[in-house]
Amino acid sequence: MNFGAIAAILTTLSFVPQAVKVIKTKDTSGISLLMYSMFVGGVFLWVIHGINIKDYPLIFANIVTFCFAVIILSYKIKYK
Amino acid sequence: MNFGAIAAILTTLSFVPQAVKVIKTKDTSGISLLMYSMFVGGVFLWVIHGINIKDYPLIFANIVTFCFAVIILSYKIKYK
Repeated sequence: MNFGAIAAILTTLSFVPQAVKVIKTKDTSGISLLMYSMFVGGVFLWVIHGINIKDYPLIFANIVTFCFAVIILSYKIKYK
Repeated sequence: MNFGAIAAILTTLSFVPQAVKVIKTKDTSGISLLMYSMFVGGVFLWVIHGINIKDYPLIFANIVTFCFAVIILSYKIKYK
């Protein structure tokens, strides 16, 4: 069984319910601004790394994660 | 420059400030239970995958992330 693929799908898509929750509730008080600032930066660098090594699953998974993490970060900044 | 290593460090350590925040504030209302359930499962599978392919940085980074994600998940379950 390809645990790596399942792991990638789970960790990538896990940010969808969090993005949906902040959009619905605007409740971001418990969310760490520092976490999502670091995380968005890190995921962006994963995309760059993926491009450098031409690893398309890595690029695609991290672009998806990046989009949802940016949504969460922007709601955190807007709604503190 | 090794973007992959920096990306790994940022995305791994980004869960530290979130863990510290939930421990200090116990404010988990805005945090998605589904996100952390999926994420903890996914990170666990990354560790298994890392063991299978004998990728020690992958194993180590995901064990660290797993520990902090489990803290966040347990506080979410305890403090809803």
